[in-house]
Amino acid sequence: MLLYYLDLAGVAVFAASGILATRDRELDWLGAIVVATLTAIGGGTLRDLLLDRHPIFWVVDTTYLLVIVASAVATMLYLQWRRAPGFAFQVADALGLALFALSGASLTLAAGFAPLIAVLMGTMTGVTGGILRDIITAHVPLILRREIYATAAIGGICGYLLLLWLGVPEETAFVVGIVLVAGLRVLGFRWGLHLPTLKGR
Amino acid sequence: MLLYYLDLAGVAVFAASGILATRDRELDWLGAIVVATLTAIGGGTLRDLLLDRHPIFWVVDTTYLLVIVASAVATMLYLQWRRAPGFAFQVADALGLALFALSGASLTLAAGFAPLIAVLMGTMTGVTGGILRDIITAHVPLILRREIYATAAIGGICGYLLLLWLGVPEETAFVVGIVLVAGLRVLGFRWGLHLPTLKGR
Amino acid sequence: MLLYYLDLAGVAVFAASGILATRDRELDWLGAIVVATLTAIGGGTLRDLLLDRHPIFWVVDTTYLLVIVASAVATMLYLQWRRAPGFAFQVADALGLALFALSGASLTLAAGFAPLIAVLMGTMTGVTGGILRDIITAHVPLILRREIYATAAIGGICGYLLLLWLGVPEETAFVVGIVLVAGLRVLGFRWGLHLPTLKGR
Repeated sequence: MLLYYLDLAGVAVFAASGILATRDRELDWLGAIVVATLTAIGGGTLRDLLLDRHPIFWVVDTTYLLVIVASAVATMLYLQWRRAPGFAFQVADALGLALFALSGASLTLAAGFAPLIAVLMGTMTGVTGGILRDIITAHVPLILRREIYATAAIGGICGYLLLLWLGVPEETAFVVGIVLVAGLRVLGFRWGLHLPTLKGR
Repeated sequence: MLLYYLDLAGVAVFAASGILATRDRELDWLGAIVVATLTAIGGGTLRDLLLDRHPIFWVVDTTYLLVIVASAVATMLYLQWRRAPGFAFQVADALGLALFALSGASLTLAAGFAPLIAVLMGTMTGVTGGILRDIITAHVPLILRREIYATAAIGGICGYLLLLWLGVPEETAFVVGIVLVAGLRVLGFRWGLHLPTLKGR
Repeated sequence: MLLYYLDLAGVAVFAASGILATRDRELDWLGAIVVATLTAIGGGTLRDLLLDRHPIFWVVDTTYLLVIVASAVATMLYLQWRRAPGFAFQVADALGLALFALSGASLTLAAGFAPLIAVLMGTMTGVTGGILRDIITAHVPLILRREIYATAAIGGICGYLLLLWLGVPEETAFVVGIVLVAGLRVLGFRWGLHLPTLKGR
């Protein structure tokens, strides 16, 4: 139940990030909602396809789509009224990354696959929506930036797996994992924190 | 049966749009056919994956692939002979958008999902081939242009759903929907028609 | 059994190509491993989704992921130590293209679909990893280059199908097909070999 609401929160924040990414583009408001929707459902759709979970989450429950449209419209109205702070896009993206990374990892474990696979599946579920958004809106993918990005997802998922292994209840571990991913990502772009890059040579 | 021929028409026009999109690129003619094929099957493949329809439409019936290659080769031969008018690409893309949008919406209803889901699924089925084409050939996606694009798909699908709800026979509603999508899209790029954009601020 | 090891070789070389593609990008080393992983599993994942093969190959067998990470780390260490020759990226990509093209074609035949479908499925399986890599890392897709690319995959798969039709044992035909794809591709970028392009007019 908690997981259901966190999933709804995930599509809502990713939808907002999708609208924010189309600000400097020329597409009309209905087109912007479509891009926001693709951003919001991208990661979870890939997760469901890879885990062979049918029907896909948003196909069988219209609540997701309604939440996405509501979040997209609210974001657009806000932008008509005032300028969003520069970090709004980054924060919405960080929360979406965190919520979907944990959701992907958790469902992979529930399907009986190995923890190592849960790390990859969670990371893919987390980063796919944002990569899709950045490619469709012709921006340089956030994952290519120097600050922590995929690394935040991996870090948070590993924390979640460690807590589970220590016997911490699933829901607690899940929430700690989300806080870890979003926290690492925000630390990344606020202070430019990053692991060593390959660019040296 | 009508739907089968309309699907064949859909892959044919998208294949032509794929060839036209590679005109100013350097890839060889066989590579151009591959890009045309990915454009033609992209939307329907996503539709079949999301609706868990297996085998995928083009895997089980080689007619699709033969039609795609024939359309691609015919387009290439035409281009050797004379210059295609500037709007040929836009028209081929508009027809593909229309045919696949309606096909996606119709199959979603047939699978028993909600009309709201049919709007999204149809829109995704319609826009995916073109997005894939534009990304692979390194063009700015048409969906980012200011004129009506995703909006045309949504408009036509809503018209189709409205007619069904009023008791109009499926095939009639389907054809009206196609004409609506293609018509809205062509109006869009001929007269620059568009809904308000977000860019104001 | 041979096919299993060739698949492992395929993910290893594509992972290396993924690392090489992130050299001139700013992402950190863990992010680079994620990009390498997406490159390595992209083609095979699409193949398994389209053929409805579940669980997806890398989800059920952690060996793939371990090989990918090992190959990515080895490539990164090598790059710390000395500069990779300019053609290393092209060779790794050519081998990945070859191994996955044949794997996709072979599994399509095994699933009972037509040889023509095997050509397309093999080509898609071969080119997808590289397209994904080039798009995520914001490079112009290799498939758009003038030299033989998709054409190499199609040529090698046709050679493999021809040998099978002549009664040559599957494993022999498979290996000849790999050599053909990689050979055609390497000939392509070493001597600029290519079929006629569309650009004439």
